[in-house]
Amino acid sequence: MSIKTSLLLLIFLPVSVYAQTPQQRVRQYRQAQETALMDEYREFLAIPNVSADSVNIRKNAAFILQMMKKRGISGTLLDGPTLGSTPAVFGEVRVPGAKKTLVFYAHYDGQPVNPKQWGEGLQPFVPVFITAPVEQGGKIVTTYKSGDPIDPNWRLSGRGSADDKAGVMTILNAYDALVKSNIPITANLKFFFEGEEEVGSTHLGEIFEKHRDKLASDLWIIADGPRHVSGKPVVQFGVRGDVNMHLTLYGPKRPLHSGNYGNWAPNPAMRMVKLLASMKDDNDHVVIKGFYDDVVPLTASERDAMAKVPNMEAALKKELGIAQPDGNGTSFVELLMRPTLNINGMQSANVGAMAGNIIPTKAEAVLDLRLVRGNEVTRQVGRVIDHIRAQGYHVLDHEPTDAERQQFPKLIKITTGHGYNAQRTPMDLPVAQGVVAAVQAVSPEPIVLSPSSGGSLPLYMFEKVLKANVVSVPVVNYDNNQHAENENVKVQYLWEGIEIMASIMLIK
Amino acid sequence: MSIKTSLLLLIFLPVSVYAQTPQQRVRQYRQAQETALMDEYREFLAIPNVSADSVNIRKNAAFILQMMKKRGISGTLLDGPTLGSTPAVFGEVRVPGAKKTLVFYAHYDGQPVNPKQWGEGLQPFVPVFITAPVEQGGKIVTTYKSGDPIDPNWRLSGRGSADDKAGVMTILNAYDALVKSNIPITANLKFFFEGEEEVGSTHLGEIFEKHRDKLASDLWIIADGPRHVSGKPVVQFGVRGDVNMHLTLYGPKRPLHSGNYGNWAPNPAMRMVKLLASMKDDNDHVVIKGFYDDVVPLTASERDAMAKVPNMEAALKKELGIAQPDGNGTSFVELLMRPTLNINGMQSANVGAMAGNIIPTKAEAVLDLRLVRGNEVTRQVGRVIDHIRAQGYHVLDHEPTDAERQQFPKLIKITTGHGYNAQRTPMDLPVAQGVVAAVQAVSPEPIVLSPSSGGSLPLYMFEKVLKANVVSVPVVNYDNNQHAENENVKVQYLWEGIEIMASIMLIK
Repeated sequence: MSIKTSLLLLIFLPVSVYAQTPQQRVRQYRQAQETALMDEYREFLAIPNVSADSVNIRKNAAFILQMMKKRGISGTLLDGPTLGSTPAVFGEVRVPGAKKTLVFYAHYDGQPVNPKQWGEGLQPFVPVFITAPVEQGGKIVTTYKSGDPIDPNWRLSGRGSADDKAGVMTILNAYDALVKSNIPITANLKFFFEGEEEVGSTHLGEIFEKHRDKLASDLWIIADGPRHVSGKPVVQFGVRGDVNMHLTLYGPKRPLHSGNYGNWAPNPAMRMVKLLASMKDDNDHVVIKGFYDDVVPLTASERDAMAKVPNMEAALKKELGIAQPDGNGTSFVELLMRPTLNINGMQSANVGAMAGNIIPTKAEAVLDLRLVRGNEVTRQVGRVIDHIRAQGYHVLDHEPTDAERQQFPKLIKITTGHGYNAQRTPMDLPVAQGVVAAVQAVSPEPIVLSPSSGGSLPLYMFEKVLKANVVSVPVVNYDNNQHAENENVKVQYLWEGIEIMASIMLIK
Repeated sequence: MSIKTSLLLLIFLPVSVYAQTPQQRVRQYRQAQETALMDEYREFLAIPNVSADSVNIRKNAAFILQMMKKRGISGTLLDGPTLGSTPAVFGEVRVPGAKKTLVFYAHYDGQPVNPKQWGEGLQPFVPVFITAPVEQGGKIVTTYKSGDPIDPNWRLSGRGSADDKAGVMTILNAYDALVKSNIPITANLKFFFEGEEEVGSTHLGEIFEKHRDKLASDLWIIADGPRHVSGKPVVQFGVRGDVNMHLTLYGPKRPLHSGNYGNWAPNPAMRMVKLLASMKDDNDHVVIKGFYDDVVPLTASERDAMAKVPNMEAALKKELGIAQPDGNGTSFVELLMRPTLNINGMQSANVGAMAGNIIPTKAEAVLDLRLVRGNEVTRQVGRVIDHIRAQGYHVLDHEPTDAERQQFPKLIKITTGHGYNAQRTPMDLPVAQGVVAAVQAVSPEPIVLSPSSGGSLPLYMFEKVLKANVVSVPVVNYDNNQHAENENVKVQYLWEGIEIMASIMLIK
């Protein structure tokens, strides 16, 4: 042993053996287990998890039960009364003498995928490491095999890698790290992993009602959504609500030659652009009557927290290639506190090499309405429908019949997804402040406190059915492409997520 | 032989043996040959013919040369000077003492296809008989095998079945029927089958210039487009011009979660609908500055012919499921004499089950501008681009660079197809009137004369380069879904097309 090596040992030995904080011990456990943790996570991500794919969804639930079993957590499936609905996976750890009961939430289902839109070599359900996001030139680490060192700056690519199997992964491994490191847990812990979040949590209310007693708690901790754009951890006290609307406009019953019928046959794509364009003014302000009427103003403490959120707009504009954001000068943080009307997608016939000179038979668009405190799903959707009617449309919930086509010049089919309202938890709630302290304890920099995420979760249902308190503690990188192609999670954020969740589990 | 049978023979024998008109003899030949004609046509349709598919396009050309050879026509390929362009197939029959030279034109390439959009069991390049159009509940005649009787009301399904391999089929079989029936041909006949019509006849001018002498004629007869909606044969004296524009608008560089960025990140789909909506008013009138300025007014004889065109609007509205056509009350026939701005297709991200709650990275649209006499391609396209610039867009011909994204709030990529101007032949031209008489001679009802088709062909090039006269004599059914899925041709129209083309070949 050289003198140099001895000196190194002198420096590092104390850290790894003596006077370790729980965070250090959790980290040490993870460092020793990286290969095993990542092998299991990749196996989990390889199970397709599109919400509508009920066969594979149940395979995901079974996999989580197996993960719990391996960690000594007694797990079970919680069904609602509706037959065929997707069960939540539930687990529980009771601690004698515990004063607090915490429920950790994540969801294991994912958004729909169009594999063709993914980057070269990437497939939604073949998790692989990439050196960086595809959009920044990241390449697949083709040489990686289980057991190799894992660069914490790599991303793991795959649907659900960030949204939201990462929640399941970090929560269960945080618990495991505490147990394996002999760190005493002082709160009762419950685990609740939902399987229908990406389709609007259709049966969550039913499950809550049926299992109300089992789900009693002091606080729910939601591990979903991204950390702040600055990279800092964030505790969120609310979420926006959300509801989708699917619009279909009808043209001629068969596609028509655009020369032989052009100027005469109504073009549903042109009607769609007129209709959608009528919903916003040139300052991106929604002009649908009453759209902003119900919004409850922000409180002083919410405004105060917002003022402390790091301003990332310049960096975001650069990264995303945006010269001028929407919102007419209003700050990013404030814009997220307003209701939205977003076009998720639209299509009529074909573009590019597949385009023909035709008048299409139909035009489709999907809208996404985000709701804030005060908004109510049915009322907000109703305003959009009223606006559409005011543009002269006869609204259907089915494909038009021949008789309806003859009767009404302007026909639209509207179907509305299962939506939910916004939710906010008061920022001064003591148990929530406990979470703030726990997350801050493992973060070298000041964490971000946000009155509401821009994103959505059906948290209003937690309040309404369970009378529960809820805060969100996201663990994944903001640039994770969630809901889209090339979804990915940064490895280092998974590691830090385990530390964050473990710290919260030590609340007394 | 019964008395009844003898009587039948007395009635029918004279028709089939004595004093037959050329039309009757052509029909008799066709009736005897239906299986062979249809077998060969189905073989032709089975060769994929999307214009850009150069390998298969050349197989089509080779097939046509073979068809000519079988009919005793010396055929050859006419190339332009541009390497790699698609050749036209040319054939010629010289008749000693002939006073007129007629060139018969059709095109053998077809529009792009998206096989997924075709009806159940139908494939674009697997020609099959269907009992009726798919949209009217037609079913595949699964029992049909070569040699079975062919119901003339059936449709033959497949890309190119109507647009425009039907032109090649009817022209070459008309010639064959005349020869095999020993009917003397009195005009020099030329055959010209183009392979790039559906991509804007990119090299047609070159081919014309290179082979100007070989293509000298008194009249070109264009067998393309549909017969009149009433089902009557039509002679058309002109066509609209056509040009495509492909528009791409840019949003964030990567797809964004619509909650985490909604209200802040510009949505390219919303910008696209605003942009396209700005091009027309609520009466479907194009509001782009100068869009209608160049239009040459109709002549008195053109207006006169238009007044005699059967009004099919009520039937069309019923068939197509349209309660109220565009055009603010202007007649169908007159609307086809005006320039158009049509949305062929548009897309941004996904709709339906594939839609995610995202802000898309781009929105695409394809426009189709039809031009009338007086319009000029570059000028008309320039007006659209000027309009787009006036909406605040910086126009690119490439994907935006990072620097351009930082500099310009509104970016659009515009690529313009190879377009062409409109063409019209004077309605009183004697040789054109000869065609009118020939088509009328084989039609039991008055045929329709149209100053201009709504559709397009690069006929202005025939005038400009060859100083040629041109009329169009379409042979296929109007409800053929040309340019779209489920393209089909009615069998009876192929049979009648052979008679029509044969009649024209007998012009003296």
